[in-house]
Amino acid sequence: MDQRNLMRTDLIDEVTEVVQHRTEKEKDTLYETPGIQMNEERKGRVHITHIETDASGAETIGKKAGTYITLSVPTLTAEDNDGFNELEKQFISSLQDIHRQIKLSPQSKVLVIGLGNRTITPDAIGPLAIDLFHEEMFTMPIEFGHLVFYAPGVTGQTGLETGEFVKAIAERVQPDLILVIDALAARNQDRLCKTVQITNTGIHPGSGVGNSRNEISFESLGVPVTAIGVPMVVDAPVLIVEAIETVFKVISSQITETARPSSALSVGPWLRSSDEPINVEAIKPIFGEWSGWSTNEIRGLLQEVLPPHHQQLFVTPKETDAWVIRHAELIQTSVLKWLQDDVFGSTAH
Amino acid sequence: MDQRNLMRTDLIDEVTEVVQHRTEKEKDTLYETPGIQMNEERKGRVHITHIETDASGAETIGKKAGTYITLSVPTLTAEDNDGFNELEKQFISSLQDIHRQIKLSPQSKVLVIGLGNRTITPDAIGPLAIDLFHEEMFTMPIEFGHLVFYAPGVTGQTGLETGEFVKAIAERVQPDLILVIDALAARNQDRLCKTVQITNTGIHPGSGVGNSRNEISFESLGVPVTAIGVPMVVDAPVLIVEAIETVFKVISSQITETARPSSALSVGPWLRSSDEPINVEAIKPIFGEWSGWSTNEIRGLLQEVLPPHHQQLFVTPKETDAWVIRHAELIQTSVLKWLQDDVFGSTAH
Amino acid sequence: MDQRNLMRTDLIDEVTEVVQHRTEKEKDTLYETPGIQMNEERKGRVHITHIETDASGAETIGKKAGTYITLSVPTLTAEDNDGFNELEKQFISSLQDIHRQIKLSPQSKVLVIGLGNRTITPDAIGPLAIDLFHEEMFTMPIEFGHLVFYAPGVTGQTGLETGEFVKAIAERVQPDLILVIDALAARNQDRLCKTVQITNTGIHPGSGVGNSRNEISFESLGVPVTAIGVPMVVDAPVLIVEAIETVFKVISSQITETARPSSALSVGPWLRSSDEPINVEAIKPIFGEWSGWSTNEIRGLLQEVLPPHHQQLFVTPKETDAWVIRHAELIQTSVLKWLQDDVFGSTAH
Amino acid sequence: MDQRNLMRTDLIDEVTEVVQHRTEKEKDTLYETPGIQMNEERKGRVHITHIETDASGAETIGKKAGTYITLSVPTLTAEDNDGFNELEKQFISSLQDIHRQIKLSPQSKVLVIGLGNRTITPDAIGPLAIDLFHEEMFTMPIEFGHLVFYAPGVTGQTGLETGEFVKAIAERVQPDLILVIDALAARNQDRLCKTVQITNTGIHPGSGVGNSRNEISFESLGVPVTAIGVPMVVDAPVLIVEAIETVFKVISSQITETARPSSALSVGPWLRSSDEPINVEAIKPIFGEWSGWSTNEIRGLLQEVLPPHHQQLFVTPKETDAWVIRHAELIQTSVLKWLQDDVFGSTAH
Repeated sequence: MDQRNLMRTDLIDEVTEVVQHRTEKEKDTLYETPGIQMNEERKGRVHITHIETDASGAETIGKKAGTYITLSVPTLTAEDNDGFNELEKQFISSLQDIHRQIKLSPQSKVLVIGLGNRTITPDAIGPLAIDLFHEEMFTMPIEFGHLVFYAPGVTGQTGLETGEFVKAIAERVQPDLILVIDALAARNQDRLCKTVQITNTGIHPGSGVGNSRNEISFESLGVPVTAIGVPMVVDAPVLIVEAIETVFKVISSQITETARPSSALSVGPWLRSSDEPINVEAIKPIFGEWSGWSTNEIRGLLQEVLPPHHQQLFVTPKETDAWVIRHAELIQTSVLKWLQDDVFGSTAH
Repeated sequence: MDQRNLMRTDLIDEVTEVVQHRTEKEKDTLYETPGIQMNEERKGRVHITHIETDASGAETIGKKAGTYITLSVPTLTAEDNDGFNELEKQFISSLQDIHRQIKLSPQSKVLVIGLGNRTITPDAIGPLAIDLFHEEMFTMPIEFGHLVFYAPGVTGQTGLETGEFVKAIAERVQPDLILVIDALAARNQDRLCKTVQITNTGIHPGSGVGNSRNEISFESLGVPVTAIGVPMVVDAPVLIVEAIETVFKVISSQITETARPSSALSVGPWLRSSDEPINVEAIKPIFGEWSGWSTNEIRGLLQEVLPPHHQQLFVTPKETDAWVIRHAELIQTSVLKWLQDDVFGSTAH
Repeated sequence: MDQRNLMRTDLIDEVTEVVQHRTEKEKDTLYETPGIQMNEERKGRVHITHIETDASGAETIGKKAGTYITLSVPTLTAEDNDGFNELEKQFISSLQDIHRQIKLSPQSKVLVIGLGNRTITPDAIGPLAIDLFHEEMFTMPIEFGHLVFYAPGVTGQTGLETGEFVKAIAERVQPDLILVIDALAARNQDRLCKTVQITNTGIHPGSGVGNSRNEISFESLGVPVTAIGVPMVVDAPVLIVEAIETVFKVISSQITETARPSSALSVGPWLRSSDEPINVEAIKPIFGEWSGWSTNEIRGLLQEVLPPHHQQLFVTPKETDAWVIRHAELIQTSVLKWLQDDVFGSTAH
Repeated sequence: MDQRNLMRTDLIDEVTEVVQHRTEKEKDTLYETPGIQMNEERKGRVHITHIETDASGAETIGKKAGTYITLSVPTLTAEDNDGFNELEKQFISSLQDIHRQIKLSPQSKVLVIGLGNRTITPDAIGPLAIDLFHEEMFTMPIEFGHLVFYAPGVTGQTGLETGEFVKAIAERVQPDLILVIDALAARNQDRLCKTVQITNTGIHPGSGVGNSRNEISFESLGVPVTAIGVPMVVDAPVLIVEAIETVFKVISSQITETARPSSALSVGPWLRSSDEPINVEAIKPIFGEWSGWSTNEIRGLLQEVLPPHHQQLFVTPKETDAWVIRHAELIQTSVLKWLQDDVFGSTAH
């Protein structure tokens, strides 16, 4: 997990501009925004968002240009075998989708990197997925040396930047594709453990692109990089700001009694609270000037007032230990099935 | 951890009435409050609060009558060997203190119970402490059968109420003392992992006393019960309410420019934000009517407005995995040293 | 695992008298041995041995009277999903079989005990199986209190005899059936991790029956007890004696060139080396008088000569960690399916 | 652990020629053997063997030329704090000793590699030691990038030879010294978990030197490599051959009633059974021709006769889980203390 700033989200679905595109009023203009193409569909219980951005769109939303596929099962639980089976099916299909432009053959080499800290439960998805590859190595019908995987640990923990580690291994292995598995931070606690994000833009923790020693991307390595992530934590200050804004929005909406017709196309409760602008005048008596502030202003006040311990807090679901294992299995199984069926499986491909 | 209600705290130090005793204005009346005796002292880096309540005091604060000793090291970190050593010293001394009235001898039997769920990291302190007893059993100079310990798992998980489990074992072992180790919930995130609470009132999850099938106490078992707990989580709604109230208090205090003279006796930043009543009139323009609401009213609004997922969220420090191991070791070592030196060690005692 | 004596085996299939019944020459008399009834069959890859002994048979073989069902897949590996699926099917069927005489209904209470030491890998099957029950408790459609499970740890480790622990819980729960899961010791390393033994004779570590404080049986508790065990270790001295005898037997058999016709009914290589008595005269020049000694005499010599460290050695398969998890899952799944389908599942039963 | 051949030992102390040097009769010629220099001393409870071989000596014993330091505490147990403290002291001193010729300064870079398979308990020492480095990274007063550590997993498991992995990282880090931590195989079960071997010859699993893709050595990497190993397993066939030979030797010795004077210089029971040649004529009536066979011949017979399962068996102490943690801690602590005090600690060095 990257630790950039107070309001961080690693999910493109939560980027403000993307979310606001989906409000009722703006819905029509969605496909006209320059540089951003977005498709939403639902297969079974899985919501699929497919976003393509070019350079101009990337600048607008502050994310890197490329493809982002988001799979979500809002009703998923850690014991939900059925939900995970549906996710796996769409996951494999998304891996096919996002790698369509990359030439892979049984002679290809694929390097899989599991990022994260094995000793911090919600950050252990990457290392655990790599453990699962280890366990199955001898039963995989993949020729030795064509699938290589490592869990390098956390930058700063091992004395070598993660990006440097991947560069070292990539130079020796000369892979045709790098897959990076990582735990993500979300802004909205509803997302936690219920979403998988797949992107061909790689991992680039710092603000810049292509210049960080921790970046793992086509730009930094010269090899296509696909990043697979699951949101596992919300930072405590993020949760608090989100909660306060939710209070303002819900009360505002109740007061103005907007008769919002529910739409069959709506991706539903996940976006509910974002749909309407807050009617500040209506709620000011209750919540004061504050309710008209921007997210950034509220965040600034909290940063000033709350003790620094807050920055060190994670908000996680109670069953984090179970979720982490479940998602490590989902990712390892989906990646392996895709590799066996579509890449290494047959010379016919 | 008990899951009573939204604003739960398992720490007597966080009970409103106790906290308010410590505000500047009320400081004088502290030792006069009927039914509550409170002593605060500081030894090295350890803050020690010793509270005795009788039936009337217990009613006032909504906690059971008895002795509560709270040890806190506000600057503690998970790697802080020095801090844990100081804690251990005071811990052993507190165990001597709280058991002074109980007749124990080398012929005594002591039953140690580690509560909690081994598969949820912040709840695993009890089971991990019991694992440590297991590992050292054969090197302990304690006669077989005089020290008995179990980690029964979580009520509901094993098909038997925890209290019923302890009753079954206690009937067979006939112990002279029962020690119960458990993870606690705190209201204030500053407390997390930095406090140990020792009380002779036992564990009584339900509101009533003596009638719950999960209660583990002298009343339910006829054996003295000492409960040892460490606050490991804050519930997400508790964190949010606390953060909102902190904002109101800090801004109110800044506006009214109270020149609060810092006192050498003050337990310091831990109580800072509680010291002054909020000047509602001063902050109402910014925060609205809301700022004058009681904690219960703010809580009620959040309960109504926030999605139910919030109830399932834990707020924990990032290094929870490390803290849990550290505290399990602290408790096991302190209890074992106390038992060896003061109970089983010598017939001279 | 019980630690009775140097040549211990917990598997009835390895009891000398039972093994010898199966030699070619004695095959006919098998079903006539007073007090022992033995059936062998093969379903798919699973070898099933069903042994019934009465008091006289029990005395002959030095095991307790009752039913013993042994399921074996000689070609099983830790990654062998197919083999474990076949085992599970026969396991559930054997649980139905062995409980046919016990009246169970949806109102019954079943107590499951996982014996063993969580911190010694090959001994952790019992505790791990209980962990799996914990994880699934809230998704099991079994009414609270009807399925109760515990992993009490190892006698001597917890300060209470295991038998006493089970007695305490059983008195409170009043179960209609107790299932005990444990790791076993085998004599033959071929058996390791490839066999499951189910018996209604319970667990009785001491030599006597009904009088040990560690016994868990109908006699000691007044409740039917079914013991489920998997051989996980061979003691080092047992392995050595077995290896020496195998050398004698194989060479003897090669020298005497017995034309042993392979039989379609034979359970195969598992019994191969036992089939022929050693031709001592033929091998004496090579192996000396020694080759005519009894197992007990060879064992006695080794006990005298080998350093005591040998007694503290375990012989285990390299992949013990994987096997232990696999078998804990097999047992937990099979027991749960049987309980849901045949006991708690329907009031129609 | 390397898996070269049936009679493998990774301990130079067990190499036949070294052991035989120490028999009474040959003791005098010990220091005259061309190419081998051996010193034995005892500090407190720790036996220290220091062996230097040049090319000719290396050929004689079939090990690589260089320095081998062996630290042993024959009476060590897993709970023996005192023994581990003594070991640590000698360990640090041996690290100083073996690196005396290598120029290291606070500007040096050191790469630490923990070999082995995290999911096989007795093979997990390397990965566990690396985990301990991770946990302490942020509290170590070592400048970022000067201490780099990885646990690459097992060759074949990750799709890249271990040697290739180390080469890739070494090329990027450009270390001045590489430390490799690994579990070893022993021939004699007395050694298990009670010995640490430190050598500057590196790791070279194959028979050749400098040409294996798995070798980790100065020859293969151009950087000094120090290998640190603890014997954790004996292969089952090795244990059996050793046991049979011990029987022959002990009985032979009893029959010939050799009055062996115990020597103050003797390293004692660890070598007892090797001291006298077997009197084959005396024991032939009991044990036959067999007793005159060479180790290789006995081994060959066992290989032919015993079922292949034996090759997959590990012989380990019962408390392997505890030993592994203990030794990972010993190694990590000793290495870190040495690095802080002697390498990174002061610019005065």
